[in-house]
Amino acid sequence: MRQSQLFTKTRREAPSDEVSKNAILLTRAGFVHKEMAGVYSYLPLGLRVIKKIENIIREEMNAIGGQELELTALQDKTLWEKTGRWSDEVVDVWFKTRDDNYGLGFTHEEPLTQIMTEHISSYRDLPVYVYQFQTKFRNEARAKSGIMRGREFLMKDLYSFSRSVEEHEEFYNKVKGAYEKVFERAGIGDRTYFTTASGGSFGDKSHEFQCVSEAGEDTIYITDKNKKEAINKEIGSEGVEKKAVEVGNIFPLGTKFSEALELCFKDEEGNKKPVIMGSYGIGVSRLMGVIAEVFSDERGLIWNKEVSPFQVHLLAMSRTVLDKAEEVYKKLVSSGVEVLYDDRDLRAGEKFADADLIGIPTRVVVGNKYKESGKLEVKERTEEESKEMTLEEFNAKFI
Amino acid sequence: MRQSQLFTKTRREAPSDEVSKNAILLTRAGFVHKEMAGVYSYLPLGLRVIKKIENIIREEMNAIGGQELELTALQDKTLWEKTGRWSDEVVDVWFKTRDDNYGLGFTHEEPLTQIMTEHISSYRDLPVYVYQFQTKFRNEARAKSGIMRGREFLMKDLYSFSRSVEEHEEFYNKVKGAYEKVFERAGIGDRTYFTTASGGSFGDKSHEFQCVSEAGEDTIYITDKNKKEAINKEIGSEGVEKKAVEVGNIFPLGTKFSEALELCFKDEEGNKKPVIMGSYGIGVSRLMGVIAEVFSDERGLIWNKEVSPFQVHLLAMSRTVLDKAEEVYKKLVSSGVEVLYDDRDLRAGEKFADADLIGIPTRVVVGNKYKESGKLEVKERTEEESKEMTLEEFNAKFI
Repeated sequence: MRQSQLFTKTRREAPSDEVSKNAILLTRAGFVHKEMAGVYSYLPLGLRVIKKIENIIREEMNAIGGQELELTALQDKTLWEKTGRWSDEVVDVWFKTRDDNYGLGFTHEEPLTQIMTEHISSYRDLPVYVYQFQTKFRNEARAKSGIMRGREFLMKDLYSFSRSVEEHEEFYNKVKGAYEKVFERAGIGDRTYFTTASGGSFGDKSHEFQCVSEAGEDTIYITDKNKKEAINKEIGSEGVEKKAVEVGNIFPLGTKFSEALELCFKDEEGNKKPVIMGSYGIGVSRLMGVIAEVFSDERGLIWNKEVSPFQVHLLAMSRTVLDKAEEVYKKLVSSGVEVLYDDRDLRAGEKFADADLIGIPTRVVVGNKYKESGKLEVKERTEEESKEMTLEEFNAKFI
Repeated sequence: MRQSQLFTKTRREAPSDEVSKNAILLTRAGFVHKEMAGVYSYLPLGLRVIKKIENIIREEMNAIGGQELELTALQDKTLWEKTGRWSDEVVDVWFKTRDDNYGLGFTHEEPLTQIMTEHISSYRDLPVYVYQFQTKFRNEARAKSGIMRGREFLMKDLYSFSRSVEEHEEFYNKVKGAYEKVFERAGIGDRTYFTTASGGSFGDKSHEFQCVSEAGEDTIYITDKNKKEAINKEIGSEGVEKKAVEVGNIFPLGTKFSEALELCFKDEEGNKKPVIMGSYGIGVSRLMGVIAEVFSDERGLIWNKEVSPFQVHLLAMSRTVLDKAEEVYKKLVSSGVEVLYDDRDLRAGEKFADADLIGIPTRVVVGNKYKESGKLEVKERTEEESKEMTLEEFNAKFI
């Protein structure tokens, strides 16, 4: 994409109404726009990051047999009354409509369990794993962590429906593996801990994936650094204390929802049993916020290759090299590289500053040197020094 | 995908609470689930159709320079009060929260115009074209047309920001062309009319794309069948009277929103002027509903190639051919064909009935004949007779 066509502008100053690093940087770089506390629009660069993260998650959920669907935001009171979760005393984050008949989904166990009653009746219909990317709504009192804690936010939620505890646990472990792959690909694998927490419906435990960050609102105690294991402070305090952000969770639901909504199956002997469920979440927009928090420096954002809005930021250093830069742009695009091409009529210093702020991992400069020797100046966002290479050398290395 | 893994089941009976053909067929075939009147979840097959339509539209919007973003559902009262559209007397379809501070977006002129005030200040920043796929909310009194009139529904909305009436009109005509391509690719091009209606902000007119269907709630008069032109009955009654469904609209907004929210630019002489806007919608879920209405028969749905959830429905006729069918499935998938493979242990008659109900355009049967002669039975959903061909012949024809 030509940067002259991109409508968003970067800003030098931090927005006055933000305190979190992710919101400050993402706003300055033109990735998001704050509509109100905890409610952000995604501008073209930001939406590209969201879609990249979404695709990583989709690939890993499909790989373990997940079927994608999409439920609704509007929720019917009568359904949630059956599980006792309509009450504001039980769930204090509901957004509800004026007539008090509808809520905006903050999670989707109830409607999905209801749907499954129409499709599951026999042991032959199980197991089933479904997931969605859904905009969730939670009327959080404190929404000051930018896109890490939204009142409207994008979430991937997966639900499992199993015949037995053993079948449930087998899938639960598969999800653990898939989540590790997601966080690895998102670049936070080495700082994300599989954290035991309270709250599961079988016995006692659920699990969180906690990414170590000073911006975190949770406290974890690292019990095994090599195995990347920790415990949430709600269940103990032995180990290294760290601030962390919950980027994912996996949660045994037992038969809580299947019993309340009568989701049963007949086993091989003809006995009627409630389905055993689990839920598994990843906050997509939160994950983007965490990446912005932990991979950034005083100059701006630093995306890794898999989630960056573009793979290459191509800069034309002056008007006199525009025709050459144009050639390089077209060649890279035709090789299948996603390029943001800074073809704007601006000073070199402004272009460098914008490139650092936006944070695309690889910067390629077409300057006077290119006209003379055919050498591009290639620099990784994480490095200080650029390397000179021809377009052919760059292509060979990059593609 | 293996049909034995697909969790949705088809139904022989029409749901008792539906009157529209699209909702009856889409529910019976397992594409959608009704949460309440006008609110539908999209199950795996249905979501695949939505994504196909979305991709067609995305390609055509990108081709005319559209930049994709994503605004929010939650809307802030204070913004909409500035344009006078917060009032329930002006807009009677608002869903609002209990505290009356937030609404759920039924359209997005206000927040987008507000965002643009931060990015547009000079004639050099214009023109700009942005679009999104957004879930909209409209508390419609009568929501009985299935997914053709939702209270929660998916819409593509594009907005243009131009310097002059001429620049606006040039883009307006480009959108007209892009919309014609979208409806052509969706299979309804030959029955969709460019219809003049009231309501534009320059002078008097806006334009709708009306798809002729008995299920339509609008009445149009066809003024030129060859040019596919019509007028809405609100502005005249000359020509052939037809029932039709509005599948798209293009709408000049003039300076209504830019003046109310102070979106201005400095022209080349330094004069401050309000930006000229247009809005352009396509109801994505409605379009899916219209396709279901107009392309279906007594046996079920009939998708065209571009919007079908899968390209090929492969049927294994008995257990004895399962290994052969498995081979064909793997070869087709490895050739890049999207295949729904009916590997279930069911009678042939049930498989044929389900294939007709689901409506994938090409059905490929692996029966005993395949074991003997290597001949598949290939039938288009729109035809009565099947043709015999080898897998190689099928691949050569299909790919």
